[in-house]
Amino acid sequence: MYRTHNNGALRAENINETVTLAGWVQKSRDKGFMIWVDLRDRYGITQLIFDEERTPKAVMDLAKTMGREFVIQVTGKVIERESKNPKMPTGDVELLVEKLEILNEAKTPPFTIEDATDGGEDLRMKYRYLDIRRNPVKEKLIFRHKVSIAVRNYLSEQGFIEVETPYLIKSTPEGARDFVVPSRMNEGQFYALPQSPQTFKQLLMVGGMDKYFQIVKCFRDEDLRADRQPEFTQIDCEMAFVEQEDILNIFEGLTKHLLKEVVGFEIESFPRMTYDEAMAKYGNDKPDIRFGMEFGELNAVAQHKDFNVFNSAELVVGIAVPGGASYTRKEIDKLIDWVKRPQVGALGMVYVKCNEDGSFKSSVDKFYDQEDLAKWAEATGAQPGDLICVLSGETSKTRAQLSALRMELATQLGLRKSDEFAPLWVVDFPLLEWDEETERYHAMHHPFTSPKPGQMELLDTKPGEVKANAYDLVLNGNEIGGGSIRIHDKEIQSKMFDYLGFTKEEAQAQFGFLMDAFQYGAPPHGGLAFGLDRLVAILGGQETIRDFIAFPKNNAGRDVMIDAPAKIDAAQLEELNLKITL
Amino acid sequence: MYRTHNNGALRAENINETVTLAGWVQKSRDKGFMIWVDLRDRYGITQLIFDEERTPKAVMDLAKTMGREFVIQVTGKVIERESKNPKMPTGDVELLVEKLEILNEAKTPPFTIEDATDGGEDLRMKYRYLDIRRNPVKEKLIFRHKVSIAVRNYLSEQGFIEVETPYLIKSTPEGARDFVVPSRMNEGQFYALPQSPQTFKQLLMVGGMDKYFQIVKCFRDEDLRADRQPEFTQIDCEMAFVEQEDILNIFEGLTKHLLKEVVGFEIESFPRMTYDEAMAKYGNDKPDIRFGMEFGELNAVAQHKDFNVFNSAELVVGIAVPGGASYTRKEIDKLIDWVKRPQVGALGMVYVKCNEDGSFKSSVDKFYDQEDLAKWAEATGAQPGDLICVLSGETSKTRAQLSALRMELATQLGLRKSDEFAPLWVVDFPLLEWDEETERYHAMHHPFTSPKPGQMELLDTKPGEVKANAYDLVLNGNEIGGGSIRIHDKEIQSKMFDYLGFTKEEAQAQFGFLMDAFQYGAPPHGGLAFGLDRLVAILGGQETIRDFIAFPKNNAGRDVMIDAPAKIDAAQLEELNLKITL
Repeated sequence: MYRTHNNGALRAENINETVTLAGWVQKSRDKGFMIWVDLRDRYGITQLIFDEERTPKAVMDLAKTMGREFVIQVTGKVIERESKNPKMPTGDVELLVEKLEILNEAKTPPFTIEDATDGGEDLRMKYRYLDIRRNPVKEKLIFRHKVSIAVRNYLSEQGFIEVETPYLIKSTPEGARDFVVPSRMNEGQFYALPQSPQTFKQLLMVGGMDKYFQIVKCFRDEDLRADRQPEFTQIDCEMAFVEQEDILNIFEGLTKHLLKEVVGFEIESFPRMTYDEAMAKYGNDKPDIRFGMEFGELNAVAQHKDFNVFNSAELVVGIAVPGGASYTRKEIDKLIDWVKRPQVGALGMVYVKCNEDGSFKSSVDKFYDQEDLAKWAEATGAQPGDLICVLSGETSKTRAQLSALRMELATQLGLRKSDEFAPLWVVDFPLLEWDEETERYHAMHHPFTSPKPGQMELLDTKPGEVKANAYDLVLNGNEIGGGSIRIHDKEIQSKMFDYLGFTKEEAQAQFGFLMDAFQYGAPPHGGLAFGLDRLVAILGGQETIRDFIAFPKNNAGRDVMIDAPAKIDAAQLEELNLKITL
Repeated sequence: MYRTHNNGALRAENINETVTLAGWVQKSRDKGFMIWVDLRDRYGITQLIFDEERTPKAVMDLAKTMGREFVIQVTGKVIERESKNPKMPTGDVELLVEKLEILNEAKTPPFTIEDATDGGEDLRMKYRYLDIRRNPVKEKLIFRHKVSIAVRNYLSEQGFIEVETPYLIKSTPEGARDFVVPSRMNEGQFYALPQSPQTFKQLLMVGGMDKYFQIVKCFRDEDLRADRQPEFTQIDCEMAFVEQEDILNIFEGLTKHLLKEVVGFEIESFPRMTYDEAMAKYGNDKPDIRFGMEFGELNAVAQHKDFNVFNSAELVVGIAVPGGASYTRKEIDKLIDWVKRPQVGALGMVYVKCNEDGSFKSSVDKFYDQEDLAKWAEATGAQPGDLICVLSGETSKTRAQLSALRMELATQLGLRKSDEFAPLWVVDFPLLEWDEETERYHAMHHPFTSPKPGQMELLDTKPGEVKANAYDLVLNGNEIGGGSIRIHDKEIQSKMFDYLGFTKEEAQAQFGFLMDAFQYGAPPHGGLAFGLDRLVAILGGQETIRDFIAFPKNNAGRDVMIDAPAKIDAAQLEELNLKITL
């Protein structure tokens, strides 16, 4: 046995016991006649003391050779600490060392293993195994485990069965590119890695599994943006004999359970909002509702005056920034520059200061009088002391720009509090979205999503207006889950593929197995998938997911530490029954 | 809401309630004026009754159109059943139907959805979603879920953290071939799919995670044998600051917990046996100890007589078959034919009948007298009434042959009871095994396994005798888990790679990241991995794993139902930055 206790265990009641500990040398203070060492493991830190008068000389000498991150084992007596440290759970005691064994030496680590390390991102990634020793990272990994096990136990208690679906599957592109895996046993053929277990979970519903879930890795061979991993983890769920309402209730229950269990946050019920409402009020289908600053549409009160910029715009829309009336000209110019950045893309910004005395001062005083501006204040909910920011132009672009500004201002104003949680259901998503590039409609969610009852007929006349039985769960401005009621009828599914531009042959070749299954008694069914990486990060009060992943990949899809992917040898290539020329 | 209750829920106390049910038509008996329907879902079966006198005519007419596996929704009143069925939990009641909706029609299924189906293996695989509706398959999938969640909760309570390791990794072949994944973003480079998370879990130990586990998919691109899947699931565990004893105790605890929780079988503690002992006593490193029939070595008592077959053999070894003295000549000839089959490969078999009167009758009476044979009986533990079967030849081949015979006889004698569980630790495995093909020693477990203390020196002189800190957990003659204490010292690991025939450059290129990590304070560590597929099957009382997998692959590695792998289109190939000629 390497230890009788871990380094977070010893308390005053252990005084006088002889114990054995093992761990890493966090730090060591050598006063010559006395050495204090902080011994660390996953569970905590215990102070060791080597004392010339009480510790054998050989042990004392050996102790002097230890550096940071040496792995050691010590045996000794627990004694009362002279200067207690109330901040440490083990702060009442220390270990007077009698025996010491150095289990492994350590080179000086390339950065300090401290909560506030001196290591930069790249270095910490390269030595991820050292980074994981640091409390902030270690605790995030433990937090992720807690979330996962809470999810599993909750769903299990609700009658869900975790079923493993295959990883080596047939390529059925769902929007992103598939990673492919050449099959040595089937010449010239490839498996794909699943972008999600979508079709398999639907088959499980046809198979009567009734309530399915799985915490499962999914894969997308996409160009990587920051904070998006080519492999990611999904909480994948599906239920039979359900309507949208049943699904929202079950997964609202799960999310409330997680908020309560893992972050101690209680909430009665989640608000709901249609997609159209979310777009009109927040310019965004995943609004952060931890704070207000709702959009006020100004077309009715700002158009038909002499200001041509607004008159020619499809949408004039503003938000009220709390306390913004006190912004200096320089601060406002900075905001204007911000919205004009190419990433945001506005051509300019009109503003109105709502003075404390009830008067208004705007950048367009030439065109609008006090009475006009009062109407703007009303529409945006601006109070005396606020600043109204107004953008205009084509509807969807303007909404996106103002939404970006709203989020930026909220961040600046400290309104996006990491210990506050504002979940929201966004429902009634459009079934289709127009794709400029291919000049046709695509499934907004995926081709298995069912239109709302009675809307199938609109497909031919007003496709853009067809609403789907699709919903997203939004938390603090992030989509953490999304799902839909699926099509369970072969004819409707076939018609949907047809509408999405699949030929009969393509649809049959790619999804024939599913449509065939629908002929043997498919129940109505629907589901939802949570992105575990993001869910965990947001519950943990952060927006970046990388820290919650033990071995993340960088933006080029590479394991920095292990240097993967890599070239493979020619013999291995040849065996794949493929002629591959690099 | 599609239903107020599921089909396993209704009891006598629900009589007179109006309820709504949904599910599949299991079967329907139409007597004209009355129709009985068994309505099925995951939870059970409820009998529906449509009665001309009490059910609306339109509903009655619609009911007559329903076939097997139609998906329906019914509303009606729960009534007392005239002829109760005590075998069904819902057998006291039936539902008098007032409303009926056919939610989906069904073609006649290609095989009957009954516990004892008329569908053959191939057909059931092709329509796996129908097979899953059958109780025996459905229950196995639910059983698997129960095992998984019991594992997770037990390990979690013991302080283990489930950490997800990556699936797109660097190729580090561990014996089997890797599946590879071309990386579009890194020209000419490939990821590999993990054969196990071995190196990652060791890095987690270097990272101070202390106790890690993961239920994780692993991949081996091997020629498939029956009942071996190219993707399989592993319960992967690792612990720091442990010796072999600690690991055996923890995972004995886990296995006892599973036996108790999921199959209701209690056992005090698991016996232990060295590899050498297992080979000598059972000719097998994963002996089934649900029954005796231990090997008796006969060299001392059977050699140096006039029987040249034995005299020239390296090993003469026998087993006692309980009650085998009564076998007819024909039955014994059948056994001899069995051991001579090419799959077993013995040249012949000597037998001794131990008569009830204490006398012996053998096939080698010419060479051995009663006193000689009495010694054979003593060595094999044969009792009057038993049959001693004796094989001879080269040690390892003869052991394997007698082991095969032992298993075959035990199966014939009904000694391998599926509701009995006999776990066993096999310890002290050899570090290396000789490979005839490459004419060199290979790591028996993997190159990260540490030799037993003080045995490193033997490597150069008697490599075959070096014992490793490696152990297997055997259950009912199947290896369900295996592991080892790992090397945690860079120098020793480097020497091991050297010994295994890696050049310095190869070792550094493939495993440099791990050896580098060892330099920064690697703790002593070790672990174990269970094969979940096999564990679940054996706990479930079966030897075949396929039924416990929702979507298994066939022996050619193909998803029969979904027809994967498949050809991918040329454009997709081109994007992979590889020139691949099919």
